[in-house]
Amino acid sequence: MKGIVYHGEKDVRVETLPDPTPPDARGAVVKIEATAICGSDLHLYHANFPLESANAFTLGHEFVGEVMETGSAVTGFRPGDEVLVSGVIGCGACAPCARGEVVCCLNQQTRVFGTTEHLDGGQAEAAAVPVADHALLRIPDGVTTEQAVLLTDILPTGFFGARMADISPGDTVVIIGAGPVGIQALLSAQLFGPARVFQIDRVPERLAMAERLGAIPVLADEADAVIAEATAGLGAGCVIEAVGLDATIQQALHLARAGGTVAVIGVNTSSALAFPMGAAFMKDLTFRTGLVPVPGLWSQLVPLVAAGRLRPEVVFTHRMGLSEGAEAYRAFDARENGILKVLLDPSR
Amino acid sequence: MKGIVYHGEKDVRVETLPDPTPPDARGAVVKIEATAICGSDLHLYHANFPLESANAFTLGHEFVGEVMETGSAVTGFRPGDEVLVSGVIGCGACAPCARGEVVCCLNQQTRVFGTTEHLDGGQAEAAAVPVADHALLRIPDGVTTEQAVLLTDILPTGFFGARMADISPGDTVVIIGAGPVGIQALLSAQLFGPARVFQIDRVPERLAMAERLGAIPVLADEADAVIAEATAGLGAGCVIEAVGLDATIQQALHLARAGGTVAVIGVNTSSALAFPMGAAFMKDLTFRTGLVPVPGLWSQLVPLVAAGRLRPEVVFTHRMGLSEGAEAYRAFDARENGILKVLLDPSR
Amino acid sequence: MKGIVYHGEKDVRVETLPDPTPPDARGAVVKIEATAICGSDLHLYHANFPLESANAFTLGHEFVGEVMETGSAVTGFRPGDEVLVSGVIGCGACAPCARGEVVCCLNQQTRVFGTTEHLDGGQAEAAAVPVADHALLRIPDGVTTEQAVLLTDILPTGFFGARMADISPGDTVVIIGAGPVGIQALLSAQLFGPARVFQIDRVPERLAMAERLGAIPVLADEADAVIAEATAGLGAGCVIEAVGLDATIQQALHLARAGGTVAVIGVNTSSALAFPMGAAFMKDLTFRTGLVPVPGLWSQLVPLVAAGRLRPEVVFTHRMGLSEGAEAYRAFDARENGILKVLLDPSR
Amino acid sequence: MKGIVYHGEKDVRVETLPDPTPPDARGAVVKIEATAICGSDLHLYHANFPLESANAFTLGHEFVGEVMETGSAVTGFRPGDEVLVSGVIGCGACAPCARGEVVCCLNQQTRVFGTTEHLDGGQAEAAAVPVADHALLRIPDGVTTEQAVLLTDILPTGFFGARMADISPGDTVVIIGAGPVGIQALLSAQLFGPARVFQIDRVPERLAMAERLGAIPVLADEADAVIAEATAGLGAGCVIEAVGLDATIQQALHLARAGGTVAVIGVNTSSALAFPMGAAFMKDLTFRTGLVPVPGLWSQLVPLVAAGRLRPEVVFTHRMGLSEGAEAYRAFDARENGILKVLLDPSR
Repeated sequence: MKGIVYHGEKDVRVETLPDPTPPDARGAVVKIEATAICGSDLHLYHANFPLESANAFTLGHEFVGEVMETGSAVTGFRPGDEVLVSGVIGCGACAPCARGEVVCCLNQQTRVFGTTEHLDGGQAEAAAVPVADHALLRIPDGVTTEQAVLLTDILPTGFFGARMADISPGDTVVIIGAGPVGIQALLSAQLFGPARVFQIDRVPERLAMAERLGAIPVLADEADAVIAEATAGLGAGCVIEAVGLDATIQQALHLARAGGTVAVIGVNTSSALAFPMGAAFMKDLTFRTGLVPVPGLWSQLVPLVAAGRLRPEVVFTHRMGLSEGAEAYRAFDARENGILKVLLDPSR
Repeated sequence: MKGIVYHGEKDVRVETLPDPTPPDARGAVVKIEATAICGSDLHLYHANFPLESANAFTLGHEFVGEVMETGSAVTGFRPGDEVLVSGVIGCGACAPCARGEVVCCLNQQTRVFGTTEHLDGGQAEAAAVPVADHALLRIPDGVTTEQAVLLTDILPTGFFGARMADISPGDTVVIIGAGPVGIQALLSAQLFGPARVFQIDRVPERLAMAERLGAIPVLADEADAVIAEATAGLGAGCVIEAVGLDATIQQALHLARAGGTVAVIGVNTSSALAFPMGAAFMKDLTFRTGLVPVPGLWSQLVPLVAAGRLRPEVVFTHRMGLSEGAEAYRAFDARENGILKVLLDPSR
Repeated sequence: MKGIVYHGEKDVRVETLPDPTPPDARGAVVKIEATAICGSDLHLYHANFPLESANAFTLGHEFVGEVMETGSAVTGFRPGDEVLVSGVIGCGACAPCARGEVVCCLNQQTRVFGTTEHLDGGQAEAAAVPVADHALLRIPDGVTTEQAVLLTDILPTGFFGARMADISPGDTVVIIGAGPVGIQALLSAQLFGPARVFQIDRVPERLAMAERLGAIPVLADEADAVIAEATAGLGAGCVIEAVGLDATIQQALHLARAGGTVAVIGVNTSSALAFPMGAAFMKDLTFRTGLVPVPGLWSQLVPLVAAGRLRPEVVFTHRMGLSEGAEAYRAFDARENGILKVLLDPSR
Repeated sequence: MKGIVYHGEKDVRVETLPDPTPPDARGAVVKIEATAICGSDLHLYHANFPLESANAFTLGHEFVGEVMETGSAVTGFRPGDEVLVSGVIGCGACAPCARGEVVCCLNQQTRVFGTTEHLDGGQAEAAAVPVADHALLRIPDGVTTEQAVLLTDILPTGFFGARMADISPGDTVVIIGAGPVGIQALLSAQLFGPARVFQIDRVPERLAMAERLGAIPVLADEADAVIAEATAGLGAGCVIEAVGLDATIQQALHLARAGGTVAVIGVNTSSALAFPMGAAFMKDLTFRTGLVPVPGLWSQLVPLVAAGRLRPEVVFTHRMGLSEGAEAYRAFDARENGILKVLLDPSR
């Protein structure tokens, strides 16, 4: 089969690989029907993600498809099932994993597909999926393939950010970043009844999409002044950071009002971000960050997508074949032609 | 001045009354610019509300206007302020009252305007308002007079119902009743991100409005079957009862799923409602009911109305003069001409 | 093997029965080392519990022992494991069951051991346990056999009551009933930091135990006056009902203050309890009742017992042999000799 | 009158000052009967606190006494009332202040007594108290003078830390620091039902007190190893930092498990604490810090102290006269003779 293989900084190649087999009795093989490139894949592309090994591996943690084969201990799925795959998985056996809280796995087996040689990803024609009963979800009626791809990571990530931000009806929300994850955060934040959502970015096209979806668009250079003006100098009750830079995380802390909450879903791997403790202390701040526990959020998100209340697929601006993988990475990284998110078709 | 005076069952009269004066140093007088008739006023109209006295009094607990006079201890308002008045007030001095939780008043002085001779109401040209600093709210920019009238009771009531129902994103909600309060409950429920809201009523016009506002309309006779079908026989996680009959409260309990919550905002004064304890026990039920703590909800609701996210005024189907008060009560009670809610103009 | 078999009102007999076998591939057989009689077993003893069948069955839902045999699909347990068994189980496969919320089982397979011919109980030398991976818990270090027996039902029940009652630090709590479940509710309520816990009963010995454990004892006849006096006429914020009579549930509603919560864990199977809706409405009440989701509470309770912070075994006042089962029921029902709870030893 | 005046680093002097007068119509004067030195006063003593001015001022934010004089707009207090004074106050008029959330004051008037020339403190014979109706609390029956002093700051601070740490029954808690605030955090944490509380310090005497009060004592050098061992390498669910050093805050983040919460109540005024974002992201962390909203916590804490459930006064190891103020600061700073906390008597 073919897959997009990571070889190092800005070096990803579409290669022919052995067909996968179930990793063990609890695993499955999925023939992939759609996959996507995530902003966090660009961290790998720029080699600023702590890798567990120097060996090549298949990229991608957003993929859906058809179950081809299941291990003997898999009870919930069988060949032919149309499924989506959680981008993040745990041991699949402990109590937190049973609740879908895979980041709290008691056996410390939290893993992300396509970020390590120990767990090949899904930018490929097929993938091996461990702990299938926990990692898979049958695609329900009313959920399209494109929506299913977004349920594997970035819609849950945006929702996790909104939930971590403690939004209540009537609140003022600020979202920093209007990229694909920022847009999912916007759609998700609106589920909690805010009076106003301000969305900050540098790219006018991204702000235009945010505005169409109900946000108040704010150019990054004007953000501090706009939020101060809009909140009588007090700041916003809920701030979601969806970029991951030190500067934008610090801006998020600055924009929060006393008693407010800052939720960081942008990936930042710093071991020493400069955190303004004194200012945080003077405003009774709550600060949260975290990798998304994907399966734990499906019971809330799937009904919303199926009922048409969430339309996350608006972020797909480009559709390419898997064989164009290297070019897709290059163009996505360069943000050419207003690319927001690329859907890849493994069949071409 | 003129006011609508309650004399007994189906006997309300527009009469000339003495002009009000501030009840004491903490009180104020408000010249009323708009008022409304509430469904709960019909309980009085039908004399099935426990009255505190047999004497006549002015009706009405939904009114807004201009401050004319303030007592010497009022610090937050002055003559000329445009204000809305909480339909429900407490002592205005204890800790729960300071938080707006007027139903938990430690001095047990929770009162509703226009339901007792001890506190004349606002279906009049003017009204005396006790504890003005706690009962009044300056009408903010972006809030219309009609919206302000709804912020005195029924929008908070609908929101209180939605909040009591423990709605989380993705939930299935059932609202029993699509009258004016049921419609506010619908608008409010949508702030909590439900996947689906089913709204039950007997009146097709009311269901049509609910459907336009985003609900799935359900005729009362078909409700049990529709909800069972839609929830695989499990029931709904969140049920809001906005009618107040024994039968509809029991239906609400029946429609809730295991682990679900039932919130009753319909007024029911029974001392012995037949409650299905055995069934409730087998489904780990939460049941809530209560009079709305109006001022405690303003900090959430006002920004939503001002930002255009809540448009509660859709319920006003009829506008009449205060001098037509008796006729307005008769027609509202008879539900003539599709009356959903009547706005009264004290100037005519 | 021997077991206590239910034949009808006040007719329970120790009989010789066939040895149990695993119900299916997911089941197990447990050799029972300790079991107990629950207050709810007395509902059966008095035949006022809705039975699913007229056939005889083995009683008992509180038992612990050693795994003797497991079905082929059981992965978490093997013969020789010392285990406790949840008195309440679900399908063991749906999402709520995975979280231990067995009463919300999506497949509506919530069942209590020893209350139906379809699921024989554990007042016996051995029992068949369905869905063993979900129903069993290995007895951890630091937990005695007697404590383990209480973790199968009544300690979780008491804790569920305390949790449902919304207790926060500084609250005033009232517990109606100082029987074995009421005592567990007391121990559990103290985990939430109340300032005062009043415990009501008719039996001085029970009140004496409650007082030793930190409660303020209140004789039932004096309860209304005592609570009114202690709360300046406002009532208590949190009331736990652990009796199950209509009158005590109504008393619980009466004793709650405005904004308070009433949690009923006493078993009441009425289809028409007379519920004071008007009074509840005037005090913004939350009312909860429910069968305990035993496995969902173990992650909180087991560490507390193992650390010595909870000592639920204080309720065992009598120890008898399983062969004395009929006499044990009779004496427990008659409350002879200050019986609070009976531990039964299947080996004699 | 006499007071302890701050002149700069390690320069505090007992001086004769003009008698205070009410700051305005809403203020009062309190004759002080007991006051204390707080660990945060030592930040001033070491001049590492950002001062608002270079002028001298009276120190102290923990004091209780008798109301001597009230402004004309004070309604809740009169001369002769025995009161305690919140160490932290706001404008006293906005909605958050009305709820006691003085750090969220909408008029941004959050102030701490005795930290600025604009608000003299209470290490004196008398003090002027602004917004008396909000800053004062009548000392209730059952609360001693020493307990009242602790209700002005450090008991609420410890409780705020425990509350921010999201402790639920059964949790494992770690408290870093067993100084006076750490001990209040211990007493407060126990109100939330933890299974185990580990308390870390370098001083054996402090650990001995923590152990007597129910904590598991841990020497600082051994802490990482002990917590790892006790939690199977996972870390603690709830960590309270009560020291304020960069290193101990970073240790708190290290000791938290995935899904856990870290609450910092130790004062740290850094503008650039090195925060391990990558590690926090991989464990879905909640991080909180803040100045305590004292009056907002009284409704919970006062009943607990009055009922004898909280005995915060255990921290007072030394009692001195106000005239010994300079010596008291020196000895407290030097931790001589096992000083944990000093109570000062203004009458000598």
